[in-house]
Amino acid sequence: MNKKQRIAIDMDEVMADTIEKFIQLYKREHNFNASLEDMRGKEFRDILPAELYNTTRKYVNEPGFFRDLPVMPDSQRVVKELHEKYDVFIVSAAMEFRNSLIDTYDWLAEHFPFIAWQHIIFCGLKIVKVDIFIDDRTRNFVDFDGRALLYSSPHNLLINDYERVDNWLQVADKLL
Amino acid sequence: MNKKQRIAIDMDEVMADTIEKFIQLYKREHNFNASLEDMRGKEFRDILPAELYNTTRKYVNEPGFFRDLPVMPDSQRVVKELHEKYDVFIVSAAMEFRNSLIDTYDWLAEHFPFIAWQHIIFCGLKIVKVDIFIDDRTRNFVDFDGRALLYSSPHNLLINDYERVDNWLQVADKLL
Repeated sequence: MNKKQRIAIDMDEVMADTIEKFIQLYKREHNFNASLEDMRGKEFRDILPAELYNTTRKYVNEPGFFRDLPVMPDSQRVVKELHEKYDVFIVSAAMEFRNSLIDTYDWLAEHFPFIAWQHIIFCGLKIVKVDIFIDDRTRNFVDFDGRALLYSSPHNLLINDYERVDNWLQVADKLL
Repeated sequence: MNKKQRIAIDMDEVMADTIEKFIQLYKREHNFNASLEDMRGKEFRDILPAELYNTTRKYVNEPGFFRDLPVMPDSQRVVKELHEKYDVFIVSAAMEFRNSLIDTYDWLAEHFPFIAWQHIIFCGLKIVKVDIFIDDRTRNFVDFDGRALLYSSPHNLLINDYERVDNWLQVADKLL
């Protein structure tokens, strides 16, 4: 039997829609209407009024922030199918936010219960040995010599150096 | 400048003395005297009376269990010196126990504050790209083609297939 290829899949802005949560949160709490068009090539905080710039950090450090993130459309079905064909690892930079660890763990258990604990990795630098890497941050591809798929997110839309996927249906087309 | 070699260092039974915690805990709670001699080649639970066999799992799932583990002698000084010479990553299989995540994070922050979050990895399977790997579990070396150092722990004392270190002074002798 051939060994399955390994895929690393990032969570935030790939499986979990952090941007959508921010949009709703800033509308509700600060009456600020974020537009995806304004976000092209920028981080979410970069489109905020100056007085709100430092508030995103406060929110992501609050317990609960990562617990109710919307699930990215089609990700559950496609990740499940990938999981059957490949050796799938979820690789999140959760270590940046202490209070995100349990929330991220519970979010995964709720929405992707077929991913066993052996296949979940919380880290900072993503020094993982895999064949395929799906991530929205190009910094995670720097030392990576496998197939990198850049998952589209507003902040990376001006980058042209990587094979790109805009949504999970495109991931399915490429890998299933 | 040459790129530093990367070292992965396991936590339980390597940096943190889980066995010593179990010995004290079973003495206090169950009046059971564990001897290191009886443990040779065995897991801690294997030396317990039959009626206590399943209790270790209960303890390790309790919040707080991993928060006050004793620090392995000399590990703080030696890991700090390794950190100056190498690119050090702490790689723990913390994902097995949901409630260990925050405790393990806080334990590291308290006893090894010089390790930045970027260099901490909580996982199950240890699929990390490193040059040197210090661990007490040979299963973590199976797919590893770098230099593996088996850190002595009672359960692995009958294994002769790996380069072995009995304590942190021996790690220092080999790597510093």
